[in-house]
Amino acid sequence: MSESKNLQVLLKNRPQGEPKVSDFAKVENSIPEPADGELLSRTIYLSLDPYMRGRISAKESYADPVELDSVMVGATVSQVVQSNLPQFSEGDFIVDYNGWQTYGVSNGKGIRKLDPEQAPLSYALGVMGMPGLTAYCALLDIGQPQAGETVVVSAASGAVGSVVGQIAKIKGCRAVGVVGSDEKCNYIVNELGFDSCINRKTQELYPALKEACPDGIDVYFDNTAGAILEAVMQQINLGARIPLVGLISQYNATNLPPGPNLMPLLVKRALIKGFLVADYQDRLKAFLSDVSGWIRDGQIKYKEDVVEGLDKAARVFIGQLQGENFGKLIVRVSPDPTKK
Amino acid sequence: MSESKNLQVLLKNRPQGEPKVSDFAKVENSIPEPADGELLSRTIYLSLDPYMRGRISAKESYADPVELDSVMVGATVSQVVQSNLPQFSEGDFIVDYNGWQTYGVSNGKGIRKLDPEQAPLSYALGVMGMPGLTAYCALLDIGQPQAGETVVVSAASGAVGSVVGQIAKIKGCRAVGVVGSDEKCNYIVNELGFDSCINRKTQELYPALKEACPDGIDVYFDNTAGAILEAVMQQINLGARIPLVGLISQYNATNLPPGPNLMPLLVKRALIKGFLVADYQDRLKAFLSDVSGWIRDGQIKYKEDVVEGLDKAARVFIGQLQGENFGKLIVRVSPDPTKK
Repeated sequence: MSESKNLQVLLKNRPQGEPKVSDFAKVENSIPEPADGELLSRTIYLSLDPYMRGRISAKESYADPVELDSVMVGATVSQVVQSNLPQFSEGDFIVDYNGWQTYGVSNGKGIRKLDPEQAPLSYALGVMGMPGLTAYCALLDIGQPQAGETVVVSAASGAVGSVVGQIAKIKGCRAVGVVGSDEKCNYIVNELGFDSCINRKTQELYPALKEACPDGIDVYFDNTAGAILEAVMQQINLGARIPLVGLISQYNATNLPPGPNLMPLLVKRALIKGFLVADYQDRLKAFLSDVSGWIRDGQIKYKEDVVEGLDKAARVFIGQLQGENFGKLIVRVSPDPTKK
Repeated sequence: MSESKNLQVLLKNRPQGEPKVSDFAKVENSIPEPADGELLSRTIYLSLDPYMRGRISAKESYADPVELDSVMVGATVSQVVQSNLPQFSEGDFIVDYNGWQTYGVSNGKGIRKLDPEQAPLSYALGVMGMPGLTAYCALLDIGQPQAGETVVVSAASGAVGSVVGQIAKIKGCRAVGVVGSDEKCNYIVNELGFDSCINRKTQELYPALKEACPDGIDVYFDNTAGAILEAVMQQINLGARIPLVGLISQYNATNLPPGPNLMPLLVKRALIKGFLVADYQDRLKAFLSDVSGWIRDGQIKYKEDVVEGLDKAARVFIGQLQGENFGKLIVRVSPDPTKK
């Protein structure tokens, strides 16, 4: 690999079920030239997120699938190398969508500049980026938590879930997380201030939720669907709200499993509503203002799981779908000049 | 049976699965005396509705179950025999909740007077009563149909569904009904003006819906859940709304079946929201004003299935859960003095 080449990871096969490392392939290409109205940037950090499983499937979803032999998609933090756009200059740090490659070209659409003084650059892929905005909008706009209510969140130590629970606490709610290990339970209760935690791998969900939520469940922020949603549905309160944000439990399923019986929605006049962060870009400013304040005040803490090098991206992405990461999963693709 | 006795139908057994006639028993008791602050009324019409299946089950629901050896509950149109309440007089026609008996006593709470000049008395149990209010509020408040959108409704020839489709037409939507016979299909298309109809017993749901809804489904008014909801979910449009109003398909189920996979809710950012008419009593006035106007203008037509005599109530209620009635099911318990 040479510094003057563009290292890329392509999608080679559409996985059936669990993706394999061999579904991806590393190639070297020449660094692209930005045309008029474009910029070239060097990728520093690449975000890995469960939603990407949907993008490599041929099934209909909210976005077109990644084409075979194309570069894997993904949000990135990058530094501008050359700009033919008036609003960006060489050296600027930006959030863009280079995907799984060391260099990318963009027309500037949907890209924003980062102030490296405000927060570590990589935060723009997590607590101050798409996952944080997801937590903020789906919880506040669909979940509408009221002080004194109980908020349950699945995948609670992840980039989205950890922010959900902490905002729930800020809003005066009881926050209960469901995670996949005792270490993660320990973290969200003792570090992040959740009131209670359930280890879905060692505890029976229904009685564990019953104990953790003595006043029932008012908001369930669903990152997973599956058995957790099933158990939650039996314990929702009148007028409960369930933002459906992810279905991690079935992303690798070859046949879609059935869902929960919906009788509790009727009995409790509750709602389930699908959420996609792309619909909420007009909330970005309010979100950044609130969240940066909460981070500054210590009300929101944030954990990253940084992996070095694009070579490892496929492997850790596969692990992420099994809950193997701990904290926001990020690949450091090239050196971060703001870090000593 | 004597005119001076109160004929009552009691719940004798909690049915497992499909109710049987022997789960109910007819008894004669003396006519009750209204105390101070009460009135006595003679039942003219009794409404039979699928929700009653839930009331005779021990499972948790939005109301306490009917106790064993108690009179079956139900909305009624009655005439006041004796009133110790200032706002009601002997001879007044009222909507009350005598249930399955010829005479009942009430404290006046939740009871309203009927003007026999405005509409046939029995309409107050259907198009101008709880079923009509259900159709109106769940469609307009949760479904929020916009002109040009497609509205699908299950149990479409029933007391609720028939009104849903006709209001959808009034609002400029394409109305598609799902029913259980060709006769019902014929009725909702040719008499009520639905654009299309599917016979769930003879047609495959997915392709039939596909053909009936060439632009996809924006609102699904769900009276049934089950296979129809499953097929609808695969064809919803962006931002679709699904008021969940009934789950007739599973009311006799001894074990709750699974529900639909919820992935389409996420992909389409759609919502399912449970509905109970009791939450919408403040909409009664607007509803009565709108619906009486629509009936007067011929924009809403209405069909009743009137059965003579309390003796038949149990049998026809059991049939209703199988879709055997055709039109709003009502029992004429005693003569209607407004009819010649």
